[in-house]
Amino acid sequence: MTRLNATHDPTRRSWVESANVPGADFPIQNLPFGVFSQGDGPKRVGVAIGDRILDLTALEAAGVLEPAPGRPVFAEGVLNPFMALPQEVWSRTRARIAELLDAQTGGPDGLVLVAQADATMHLPIFVRSFTDFYASREHASNVGSMFRGPDNALMPNWLHLPVGYNGRASTVVVSGTAIRRPNGQLKAPDAEAPHFGPCRRLDIELEMGAIVGTPSAMGQPVTTAQAYDMIFGYVLLNDWSARDIQVWEYQPLGPFQAKAFATTISPWVVTREALEPFRVPTPERIKPLLPYLEEASPNNFDIALAVDMAPAGGAGDGAATTISRTNYRHMYFSSAQQLAHHSASGCAMCTGDLLGSGTVSGSTPDSLGSLLEITWNGRDPIDLGGVSRTFIEDGDTLTLRGWCEGEYRVGFGECAGTVLPAVDYGR
Amino acid sequence: MTRLNATHDPTRRSWVESANVPGADFPIQNLPFGVFSQGDGPKRVGVAIGDRILDLTALEAAGVLEPAPGRPVFAEGVLNPFMALPQEVWSRTRARIAELLDAQTGGPDGLVLVAQADATMHLPIFVRSFTDFYASREHASNVGSMFRGPDNALMPNWLHLPVGYNGRASTVVVSGTAIRRPNGQLKAPDAEAPHFGPCRRLDIELEMGAIVGTPSAMGQPVTTAQAYDMIFGYVLLNDWSARDIQVWEYQPLGPFQAKAFATTISPWVVTREALEPFRVPTPERIKPLLPYLEEASPNNFDIALAVDMAPAGGAGDGAATTISRTNYRHMYFSSAQQLAHHSASGCAMCTGDLLGSGTVSGSTPDSLGSLLEITWNGRDPIDLGGVSRTFIEDGDTLTLRGWCEGEYRVGFGECAGTVLPAVDYGR
Repeated sequence: MTRLNATHDPTRRSWVESANVPGADFPIQNLPFGVFSQGDGPKRVGVAIGDRILDLTALEAAGVLEPAPGRPVFAEGVLNPFMALPQEVWSRTRARIAELLDAQTGGPDGLVLVAQADATMHLPIFVRSFTDFYASREHASNVGSMFRGPDNALMPNWLHLPVGYNGRASTVVVSGTAIRRPNGQLKAPDAEAPHFGPCRRLDIELEMGAIVGTPSAMGQPVTTAQAYDMIFGYVLLNDWSARDIQVWEYQPLGPFQAKAFATTISPWVVTREALEPFRVPTPERIKPLLPYLEEASPNNFDIALAVDMAPAGGAGDGAATTISRTNYRHMYFSSAQQLAHHSASGCAMCTGDLLGSGTVSGSTPDSLGSLLEITWNGRDPIDLGGVSRTFIEDGDTLTLRGWCEGEYRVGFGECAGTVLPAVDYGR
Repeated sequence: MTRLNATHDPTRRSWVESANVPGADFPIQNLPFGVFSQGDGPKRVGVAIGDRILDLTALEAAGVLEPAPGRPVFAEGVLNPFMALPQEVWSRTRARIAELLDAQTGGPDGLVLVAQADATMHLPIFVRSFTDFYASREHASNVGSMFRGPDNALMPNWLHLPVGYNGRASTVVVSGTAIRRPNGQLKAPDAEAPHFGPCRRLDIELEMGAIVGTPSAMGQPVTTAQAYDMIFGYVLLNDWSARDIQVWEYQPLGPFQAKAFATTISPWVVTREALEPFRVPTPERIKPLLPYLEEASPNNFDIALAVDMAPAGGAGDGAATTISRTNYRHMYFSSAQQLAHHSASGCAMCTGDLLGSGTVSGSTPDSLGSLLEITWNGRDPIDLGGVSRTFIEDGDTLTLRGWCEGEYRVGFGECAGTVLPAVDYGR
């Protein structure tokens, strides 16, 4: 059921030599889209190739690329105008870029290439809305078991629908943005009343983010097949979470300030088309799904994921420790199922909507996607080369990585953030 | 603590005679902002005066109004560019409009006035994000009592913080838009598994919506005093709710598709400045608040509210029945407290953010803001002039009204919607 074309040819090589190095995240078969700038210059749309960026804004201005004839779509420094174009245009543009970068058919003449080391990356999309799901059975079972006991680990609805909630779009930031530790209401179990202060149980959530390109109309639900096609691409996503704020605030309407302070995404949007060779089915159903959630195709992806944690100030052995290795294929609901469910009530979906997969956890202790699970709510500290951690301390850096590996590698780059101390605003 | 100026002078009268009629919603002391069009013409920004609309887009083009010198802010047919200007500009512009419409200082020369009856109203703002709160103690107690029993009616956090959740911005629509009954997963308490079909317990929620004009930066919480000033204005808000979808889906992350299909707001944004004479304090605290939520000023408003329900096809006596009368002053948390709490973690607030107050219910049976409460979850049908209802049936029209009454009236107009049958999409 995968839909392969010339852009998936494993024998293709680029005249940009760094793209052909084994293990490179951005070979000619990947071509992820992002937004960059140099110095004080304006934001530009680009495609990553090896350790370079191909400047699409320049190519469009020069008339070499013309996704929407007569109307520039790469001039605004954000991917939304391009993502709003028909899916054939996404595909045709990507094919043309591959030709330009191919060692057989292309060459450097007339192309602007920028070293990634010299560029500043920006949020690639205007995030119209951010929705966060909860689609890993292992993660939901672990968290449920911790907070409600093993007998009530999964809520009765969990196997029937992709549980999700609306997140906050205004605080989605690009990898590399420093993350300010949030303040909030905290209440110890034995305290009479809450107090206000810095979060003490700051956590990550290892997720993938699906980005909606094609919108849907209010009142018009979409099928899982339509939903699959509406997705422009994927990013790594860290849904920073304040566990102590969360536990006090979340009843009965769900997480709010515990999640609102920051969500980090990786800068390069790997297109759905680039992921086609890595399609896999969702895990076997434990209970049958209602027809509107059934899938005729394998809509999950085989994406290896890892989390690295580096303690503040180069403590310990000075290196980052990989604290989790897992795979996106474990998700019980695909992003197509999530999007179809999202629209089921008639909810309009928009270009630029970001759908977090939910924390990706596997079934083994080394494959968990949050510190909450890894340290079992702080009970079992982890070792980072000589220093130990339960939750995140100020100055710690957390980095997510992701890649598909087959006849070639399709990498997502990094999704990183360093935590700054909380604002002391004297209240 | 109210801040009155010449625009609040009760003796002012307009040369637009319909504005001077006792009981008119839009006297010269109100001057709410909205977006309208005529025929196939473009969207224009206007101010309601009596039964007319003053065309601000035309006044700006003619140079009579110039909120942002050299840069048009009324040309886009949405209020956001104007709301993003400093609060002094909101106030100065409003004062100038009052002069133009004043019987003493103004006159019809050079002004474009359109009959409201000839205009189509549009969504006045681009809704950047929609957040819905739950700030009526009576409503939260009623719902909690229904679902968790009277002993657990209010969650332990409720008196300490304004409970809220992120809603869906893409389906906020203007009054008059038909509302499609949603489909969703439904599960009877005794059923083995859920089924998929049309919502059978469709409800309203009577709310006020606060619209953020002035943004705040990520990582920088705002005080309640700052929050009060950041709010540009208020609208009536009906948070349509599918109670049967909600009860199955909402654990543990809150309402999702049960609320995502539609939220209706009234077309005229009544400015916070116009509401100054009607400021009242929040109800007495049952438990002391943490300092960051304390208010030095009365930040609630005395706004009378009513809900009218007209059964499909003019059934019964053919007239709408007023099924609730309440007042916004009952809200335990003001919108300034809600906004301050929203930013407490460092969440960035944006121009165009819409904050629903939560359902406004009073303490008497005739002052409840949802059918869920009015019919006590369908147990006690209501009479609409000869026909009875528990929840909303296809073809029913629900209309919210709101007004402040003092030396003059400041009205909000109407927030209405008629329900269409669910899509049968054969799944």
